[in-house]
Amino acid sequence: MGQKSDQKSQQKNQKKNQQKNQTITPREQDFAAWYQDVVRQGDLAENAEVVKGCMVIKPHGYAIWEKIQAQLDRRFKETGHKNAYFPLLIPESFLKKEAEHVEGFAPELAVVTMAGGKKLEEPYVIRPTSETIIGHFFAKWIGSWRDLPLLINQWANVMRWELRTRMFLRTGEFLWQEGHTAHSSHEEAKVETLRMLDVYAEFAEEWMAMPVIKGLKTEGEKFAGANKTYCIEAMMQNGLALQAGTSHDLGQNFGKAFNVRFQNKDKELEYVWQTSWGVSTRLVGGLIMSHSDDKGLVLPPRLAPIHVVIVPIYRKEEERDDVLAKADALAAEMRARGLSVEIDARDYKPGFKYYHWEQRGVPLRVELGPRDLKSETVMLKRRDQDDKFTLPMAELAEKAEVMMEEIQTALLEKAKAQLKENTLLADSLAEVKEILEPVTAERGGGKFVMVHLADHADVDAALKEFKATVRCIPLEDHYDGGGKCVVTGVEVDRRVVVAKSY
Amino acid sequence: MGQKSDQKSQQKNQKKNQQKNQTITPREQDFAAWYQDVVRQGDLAENAEVVKGCMVIKPHGYAIWEKIQAQLDRRFKETGHKNAYFPLLIPESFLKKEAEHVEGFAPELAVVTMAGGKKLEEPYVIRPTSETIIGHFFAKWIGSWRDLPLLINQWANVMRWELRTRMFLRTGEFLWQEGHTAHSSHEEAKVETLRMLDVYAEFAEEWMAMPVIKGLKTEGEKFAGANKTYCIEAMMQNGLALQAGTSHDLGQNFGKAFNVRFQNKDKELEYVWQTSWGVSTRLVGGLIMSHSDDKGLVLPPRLAPIHVVIVPIYRKEEERDDVLAKADALAAEMRARGLSVEIDARDYKPGFKYYHWEQRGVPLRVELGPRDLKSETVMLKRRDQDDKFTLPMAELAEKAEVMMEEIQTALLEKAKAQLKENTLLADSLAEVKEILEPVTAERGGGKFVMVHLADHADVDAALKEFKATVRCIPLEDHYDGGGKCVVTGVEVDRRVVVAKSY
Repeated sequence: MGQKSDQKSQQKNQKKNQQKNQTITPREQDFAAWYQDVVRQGDLAENAEVVKGCMVIKPHGYAIWEKIQAQLDRRFKETGHKNAYFPLLIPESFLKKEAEHVEGFAPELAVVTMAGGKKLEEPYVIRPTSETIIGHFFAKWIGSWRDLPLLINQWANVMRWELRTRMFLRTGEFLWQEGHTAHSSHEEAKVETLRMLDVYAEFAEEWMAMPVIKGLKTEGEKFAGANKTYCIEAMMQNGLALQAGTSHDLGQNFGKAFNVRFQNKDKELEYVWQTSWGVSTRLVGGLIMSHSDDKGLVLPPRLAPIHVVIVPIYRKEEERDDVLAKADALAAEMRARGLSVEIDARDYKPGFKYYHWEQRGVPLRVELGPRDLKSETVMLKRRDQDDKFTLPMAELAEKAEVMMEEIQTALLEKAKAQLKENTLLADSLAEVKEILEPVTAERGGGKFVMVHLADHADVDAALKEFKATVRCIPLEDHYDGGGKCVVTGVEVDRRVVVAKSY
Repeated sequence: MGQKSDQKSQQKNQKKNQQKNQTITPREQDFAAWYQDVVRQGDLAENAEVVKGCMVIKPHGYAIWEKIQAQLDRRFKETGHKNAYFPLLIPESFLKKEAEHVEGFAPELAVVTMAGGKKLEEPYVIRPTSETIIGHFFAKWIGSWRDLPLLINQWANVMRWELRTRMFLRTGEFLWQEGHTAHSSHEEAKVETLRMLDVYAEFAEEWMAMPVIKGLKTEGEKFAGANKTYCIEAMMQNGLALQAGTSHDLGQNFGKAFNVRFQNKDKELEYVWQTSWGVSTRLVGGLIMSHSDDKGLVLPPRLAPIHVVIVPIYRKEEERDDVLAKADALAAEMRARGLSVEIDARDYKPGFKYYHWEQRGVPLRVELGPRDLKSETVMLKRRDQDDKFTLPMAELAEKAEVMMEEIQTALLEKAKAQLKENTLLADSLAEVKEILEPVTAERGGGKFVMVHLADHADVDAALKEFKATVRCIPLEDHYDGGGKCVVTGVEVDRRVVVAKSY
């Protein structure tokens, strides 16, 4: 093919792709396809393809992650943690020092066997998580009770070779933070574990507008190497559960595996008590599936990289300057209030721009044309509502700021209502089955079922038949207290959350 | 051994280590040992040992890196760049698509051959830099001139398996940022390359207090795959050169290797023109070697995680409360001016604390005891000066703020003077040899020699005999213009910088 025809076919392909790409599958039709469409049309990420199971986080998606990072990092520092950085590679033998840990992670490891042109004597694994390598250094750093607590956090990439991946939710490589702390008593470590769980829960509700249930994982679902794993579980719009963050009470397991000891005040050597806790780019997936609609991404203002977009409208060239000058002035007023404002002065039609920013989740759109200039009003469109409305121009900046808080609250309330509506009680396995079995394309059997269940292998096996698991044993009981486990018959002190999950 | 004797031997070892660790080798005695001592005593980092050539960045070192990141990130965003994230792993075949690139990086690659329990069909390499994988995605993202310029930056870890490593300066894994941009014309790409070089140079001078020479690398020293590599070169205290940042004009090399084309305004397909530019945790090494002294780390205030430390002094327990209350009040006043203040109320003697914070490079120390309370003064010690002085308490906050700028300026001036003093002119190879050969423990032949040299293999070979290289061809000529190359005899338009380097 010559360059000309090559060119034509490329143009044709581009057009085809654009058309194909412009549609978002409705949630009711296919929730998984909808999710992928929202991610693509929101310009958030794409599958790497050439690197199995990995993704590229595009600028708009990365900007959301940066906002998440900034908030969490501030909270970690306020609670006394300091950031550090440990090696990406971990000697393979390190993982084997903690029996449960290696069993849990071995199937997912990526292994470096060659480096600098030579075969390595001992292979390295790319960190799937850093308890082992950090344990090794904690042993060097900790000598006495005076060195404790040691409160460290790391922002890093990790790798877990997964078979089935889904952008943000489960990828071979992902970005996360991992907190690692060492304490002189189990009591203090437990307090730390729950303190960081609270930090996650508060962040999820207040910033992501995503209500979560704080709870304890069952033995079958806990972190490989932990004594206890606490989690925050969120409900996505299809009713499926998303484990959004975990905080582990590691007991002395890694302390013993890596000989991390301290001299206590009585001059005796003791193993330290450790915790670890993490959230990842998975949060971006949770954010998307909590609020977005069939038109694309919806973002809570506190995590939106752009709060307001101004779309200038003009037909004649001589109108252009006036409209853009006013747009600049309005943007400046809003920016002075801390809002992030974009003026879309590109050479496209207004309708195209509405569509463009809607799909990227910008909370508020301002339309500004020559008639608005005359009437000194603007036309507004909230991303979370259907109708447009007008406002005197002079009120825009102040109202826009207020609206951000209103949208934030509205999204949280909506998500809370959705969680409440789709949480049902069951008092027998048959009832659990009845709730979770009717799989429709829309919901996929997506409900949270509150039911009395023991932490037992028989329970796990029974739920496996509905492809469900105990998501957590809630820390707070908002229901009717104790009852008999509907599988094993033993007495338990509260209902647990059962659901299908990501 | 029983637990008791085990314990005793551990205590003994700890004490021994502490004693050993407390000393810093003087610069004159052994500059390399001094550097290692400053890094260790400043609690900045340690060799990972169990992961060959890699390091752990400890909280105090990481806090400096975070300050560097925040400043650079702001500048990148102000110049229109957006952050994104690309996969850590790169298919091995990608590197081979650009002939010079693979030749340059092949010897340093770490290779993943196994993942998820299976041998991979095609191995992945851990990114040594991301031109190739980003080129692959640029080809997908760029269709028309409207998509250009595409201005991307990535904060990431990279890996280059080096034989000789030195903390911060050259490590197997390091943290960095890599900018990657695509443009519709070579002219525009060249402007971008130099714009980012300017960003680096300004940051080095204004924030790191480290003067740099902006210049062009010779063919032998340029980035593998670039048309031209620009750099900032700094002089360390021993007179050795440190390449502190690079900015590459990649021409269409990667565009052609990865088929990154755009339709120009005349509807013809063209390859894009690309740039890449990066700085790394190596900057922390440069910072250390620019300012620190035989007592340990010295930090320019703009990058110091802690600006002021208050050491409360008291003998009797009843003095303690008054002194600490005043310390709190003074700290609050200084914090209100944006200074980061630490009160060291630990149960150690004042002398130990002075030593502790001196080694960590805190710019200003405030000593506060019962007598100071009476006289309403404080005793001050600037890290960059030898003598203490007193100040009325009421003036502390204001003066502390002013002093930060004074220290910043003083460090820059000192570093500039050092650069000037150790930059010498030579007009023959014999003179170059005379300057660079007298290797003393203190200086190691550390000078910058300004000499007329052509960009030629014969020059590189001649300089190799003194273990020196052309560090750069300066962008600005501050000397006497053109002259004959002292090796090849050809006319060149300015003197170049020759030095031994890290």
